[in-house]
Amino acid sequence: MSSSLASVSVSVLLVTYICATPISNKPRYTDNYHHSHIFRGASRPAHSPDQNNAAYWRHQAQSTLREKLAKPLLTGRARNVIMFLGDGLSIPTLAAARTYLGQSQGQTGEETVLSFEAFPHTGLSKTYCVDSQVADSACSATAYLSGIKANIGTIGVTGNVKLNDCPAMLEAANRVTSILKWSQDAGKSTGVVTTTRITHASPAGAYSQTANRNWENDAEVKNSGQDPNKCDDIAKQLITSLPGRNIKVILGGGRKEFLPTNATDEDGKRGARTDGLDLIAEWKSDKRRRRASFQYVWNREQLLRVNPERKDFVLGLFNSDHLEYHLLANTTKEPTLEELTRFSIRILRKEPRGFFLFVEGGRIDHGHHDTKAHLALDETVEFAKAIKAATDMTREEETLIVVTADHAHTLSISGYPARGNDIFGISGKSDVDKLPYSTISYANGPGYKQPLPNGSRYNISQDNLADVNYKFPATLPLSSETHGGDDVAVFARGPWSHLYAGTFEQNFIPHVMAYASCVGNGRTVCDVYRPY
Amino acid sequence: MSSSLASVSVSVLLVTYICATPISNKPRYTDNYHHSHIFRGASRPAHSPDQNNAAYWRHQAQSTLREKLAKPLLTGRARNVIMFLGDGLSIPTLAAARTYLGQSQGQTGEETVLSFEAFPHTGLSKTYCVDSQVADSACSATAYLSGIKANIGTIGVTGNVKLNDCPAMLEAANRVTSILKWSQDAGKSTGVVTTTRITHASPAGAYSQTANRNWENDAEVKNSGQDPNKCDDIAKQLITSLPGRNIKVILGGGRKEFLPTNATDEDGKRGARTDGLDLIAEWKSDKRRRRASFQYVWNREQLLRVNPERKDFVLGLFNSDHLEYHLLANTTKEPTLEELTRFSIRILRKEPRGFFLFVEGGRIDHGHHDTKAHLALDETVEFAKAIKAATDMTREEETLIVVTADHAHTLSISGYPARGNDIFGISGKSDVDKLPYSTISYANGPGYKQPLPNGSRYNISQDNLADVNYKFPATLPLSSETHGGDDVAVFARGPWSHLYAGTFEQNFIPHVMAYASCVGNGRTVCDVYRPY
Repeated sequence: MSSSLASVSVSVLLVTYICATPISNKPRYTDNYHHSHIFRGASRPAHSPDQNNAAYWRHQAQSTLREKLAKPLLTGRARNVIMFLGDGLSIPTLAAARTYLGQSQGQTGEETVLSFEAFPHTGLSKTYCVDSQVADSACSATAYLSGIKANIGTIGVTGNVKLNDCPAMLEAANRVTSILKWSQDAGKSTGVVTTTRITHASPAGAYSQTANRNWENDAEVKNSGQDPNKCDDIAKQLITSLPGRNIKVILGGGRKEFLPTNATDEDGKRGARTDGLDLIAEWKSDKRRRRASFQYVWNREQLLRVNPERKDFVLGLFNSDHLEYHLLANTTKEPTLEELTRFSIRILRKEPRGFFLFVEGGRIDHGHHDTKAHLALDETVEFAKAIKAATDMTREEETLIVVTADHAHTLSISGYPARGNDIFGISGKSDVDKLPYSTISYANGPGYKQPLPNGSRYNISQDNLADVNYKFPATLPLSSETHGGDDVAVFARGPWSHLYAGTFEQNFIPHVMAYASCVGNGRTVCDVYRPY
Repeated sequence: MSSSLASVSVSVLLVTYICATPISNKPRYTDNYHHSHIFRGASRPAHSPDQNNAAYWRHQAQSTLREKLAKPLLTGRARNVIMFLGDGLSIPTLAAARTYLGQSQGQTGEETVLSFEAFPHTGLSKTYCVDSQVADSACSATAYLSGIKANIGTIGVTGNVKLNDCPAMLEAANRVTSILKWSQDAGKSTGVVTTTRITHASPAGAYSQTANRNWENDAEVKNSGQDPNKCDDIAKQLITSLPGRNIKVILGGGRKEFLPTNATDEDGKRGARTDGLDLIAEWKSDKRRRRASFQYVWNREQLLRVNPERKDFVLGLFNSDHLEYHLLANTTKEPTLEELTRFSIRILRKEPRGFFLFVEGGRIDHGHHDTKAHLALDETVEFAKAIKAATDMTREEETLIVVTADHAHTLSISGYPARGNDIFGISGKSDVDKLPYSTISYANGPGYKQPLPNGSRYNISQDNLADVNYKFPATLPLSSETHGGDDVAVFARGPWSHLYAGTFEQNFIPHVMAYASCVGNGRTVCDVYRPY
C-alpha cells in the first residue's frame, strides 16, 4: 500500500503501548457508566508522544487553517469531470477504512487520511428515493447521475415508472438521461469503469433506462414476465443504444451478460443471454463500421499492453461476473481499480473538449452485504488509491472530481477501544454478560451469531477476526446485510467543488457537475446570464 | 412543533399509500438479494405525486444551485460566536431525527430539513482522542473548545494528564483554556447553556480543567482517592475561578453539585458536597461584592420573569440533576432549550464587543445510551429549535453559528422501509428467521433482546415501539449503549463558516471560531498580516 495515500504523517514508535490508567471510579450516571467496560488490549502501535502536548495539536490545527485560508475558490469552467462512486461507502465506513489503512502501515490508524478526505469541500447527501426511505443502488444512481429521484430498483426513469413496469419505461416523458449523455452531447469523451459487472445498477445509471435493475440480460427481462423485444436489457442498451455506443472506454466485469448461453467466455464461463446475441462481437462490428480504432480486452495483461494514445474505443471485461475482491483476486489477471482509472483517463484526455468519467468502487457494498468488513474496508482503500491516481493525473484548475456514495450501510464502530486498537479486534467486554464484543458490527446480516443452546450469547473470542472473510456480528440474521438510511458524504475538488456544501438532496449532485462543465439543460457557468 | 423548522415544504396527500409493485424476481446476487425482504406497511403518509415527475426534482435541484451560487462568502469579523453542541448527535441520528420531525407534522419525513441542515457549510470532524479510538464527551470537549486533543475522561488538560492524575493536572504546562476564556479576554460577554448538569463534561469544557470528568463535586474527587483541596471539583471551578466567575449567563441542571449534603434544594433534593460549601450562595456573594446586578433562578417561571436587559449575571439551575427529557418534562417548571437560548442571547448581546455562547443539547446522548431512540430524536428536534431561535435572533453577517457533535453513537437506520414508513416502526422481516425487525437499532446497549428459551430471536411485534421509553434492539447487552467512532458533521453559517469544509480533526473547530472572532493566540482575521 502506498504511503502517499496517507497525507498525515506522524512519527510512530513501535513500542508496547502503556495502558492508560484504568478508570476506577464507580460510575454514577448513564452517560459515565460506559467507562466501566473500557477494554484495553495488550500490544498495539502507540501514538506519538508529541500528541500529549498542546503544541502538537495547535500546530496541526493552525496548519489546517492556513491551508484552508490559502485555498482559492475555483470558478472557471471544468474541462473534465470525474465522478467516483463508492457503492455503500457510508460515513462510518470512512473512519473504519482510514484506521485499517493506517494500521496496515504500522500506525495507530485513526489519524490517517484517505486520499479523498484531503479534498477541500464536503457536503452531506440525502439518499432516500421516491418510494423508499432507504435507497438501493438503482434509484440512487438515477439521482446522482440524472439529477432526479426515482423508485427503488429503477434506473434512468422517473417516479412514474414502478418496478417492472416495461410499458411505462418506454414512454418518453418517463425517461431521463445522465450527465454522461449530456457530456457526449457537448462533444466530450466519456467513460465508465467499475469493479462490478458493467451492467450493474451504478454504472448502468450512466447509460441505461430500465424499470428493473435486474434486467442485465434478456433472460432476466423474461423472468420478470416482460418482453425483452420491447424493453431492452441493460447490456444490449450499452452496446446498441446511445449513449452506450459512443462511450470511449468501458471497463468492468460481467462478460456473461454479453454472451449467449451457448457460448463460453475466455475463462470457460457460459453466457447468460437467450436471444443468441454476442454483444462483444456487436461492439466490435459497430466500431469497425465506424472506422474507429478499438480494442477488446479481457485480462490485465492485455489491458496494460494497449496504447491508449492509439485507441478510440476500449472495452474491457475482466470477469464473467463482478471483478474479484482486491484481497482475493488473481492480480496478474484482473487489474486494480487504480489501473483501470489510470488507463481510462489516458484514453479520454485525448479529446480537446474534455471528458466525463464515472468510476465505481462497487464491491465495498458487497463486502458490507456479507458483513465481511475486512473486504469492504480494503475495497475502500483501493477506491482511495484510484482517486489518488486521478488527482495525480489531472490539474485541480480544470478537473472537477466528485467522490460520493449511493447509500449507507449499517456498520458501526462501537465501544471505547484504546487508540490504535486493531480495527478488526475486540472493543471491550459486556458488563451484562461478561462476553467480549468486536469494534465493528452490523445492524443485520449473515454475520448474526446464533445464541448457544443455553441462551448465552455466542463468544466471539473463539473466532479468527483477522480472517479476511470473517463475518462480523449483527443484531439479527439476514442473508444479506441491508443498506442504511443515513446521509452519505460528498468530497469534491476542482472548479465549483465549493458548491458541495451543506446538506442537500442526492439528485443535486449532477446539477453541479453540469454547471461546472457546461453540459445539460440547466444553468451552467457558461451561460451569458450570471446571477452573481 | 413549529412548521417553520421544516424548510422544505411539499404538498402531502394524506391518503392511504399505494404499495409499490412488489419485486417478484428471484434475486440473483448478494447485492440484489435484499429486495426479497422489502416490507411495506399498510398506511402512512404518501409522497406528493409531483415527485413522480422529473420536473419536480430538476426544479428543486436548480433552486438549490441558485441559492448556493447567490450565497456570498462572509469574510468579515464575527462579532458573536454561538456554538451548538449536540451531545452524541451522530450523522445517522440526523436522518432519523428529520424523519421523526416530518412525520410528526403528517409528512413522509425523509425530505424534512432540521433547522441547521439548511446552513450553508458542512465539514466532517474526526473525533478520536489521544488515547482512545472512540471519544467520550470530556476529551472531545477539550478538542472542540480548547483546540487540542486530550485523554478520555479528561477536560481542559493535555495528553500528559492521564485520567485521575491530580498532580499532573495542576502543572501549568498541562492546562489549556477554552474559546470561552479567550472571548472573555477579548472583552466579550460569555454564556454556557445545557440540558444536562452544568458541571457535566461538555459544558465543563468551556470553563474547567480536570483529570476526571466525574469530579463534579468534592465528594467525587475524594472517591477517586484524590485531594479536593488540591484539585478543585468542577462546580467549585465554575463559581470561584476564571473564566467561570465572569460568565454572564449559566443555565442548566445540577443543583446538587453546588449544595452541601446537609442542605436541600428548592425541590427538596439533597446536595452532594461534603465540604460544606453552598456554591449558589457563593455565586451571589461574588456578584454582590462586584456590585453587579444578578439573579439566581431555579424554575422556568422565574427565568421568564427576569428582564435580561437589566441583569448582568444570571445563574439558572432547573433541576437537582440533568434537566428532564423534553418529552417527559414538566414544562411549566423546566424551560426548553429554545427558551434558554433566547434568554441567553438577550443577556449577552448587551455587550458591544460581542459574545461567545455555548449551548448544549446534552440529552440526545442519554437517550441513545438507553437505546431510547424516541427520546434521542426528540431531543435532537428540540436542539434544532434552539438553533432556529439563534438564527432568528442574530444577523448572519456578524454572528458565526457552529453546530456539531462531540462523538457519534451506534444507531442504524436499516432495511428498505417504504417512503414515509414510521421511523420508529418495523422495517421488514428477516428472510432467515421470518421475524420482523425495526428500522432503528443499536450496536449494543440495554435494548438487547434476550432470545427465547428455544433459541428463537425475540419477536418485537409484541412490543409497543411507539412508547417513548421503548428500548430499541441491540446486537449485544450493555447497561449503557456506547458511543460510535464515526465522524460527526459540522454545520456552520456566518463569517468564515466556509472554513468548515472537508474532513478535519475535531480540535480544528475552535481555531476557526477564534480566527473569525479575533480571539485567542492563533491567527485571526484581525491580524495585520493577511496570507491571502
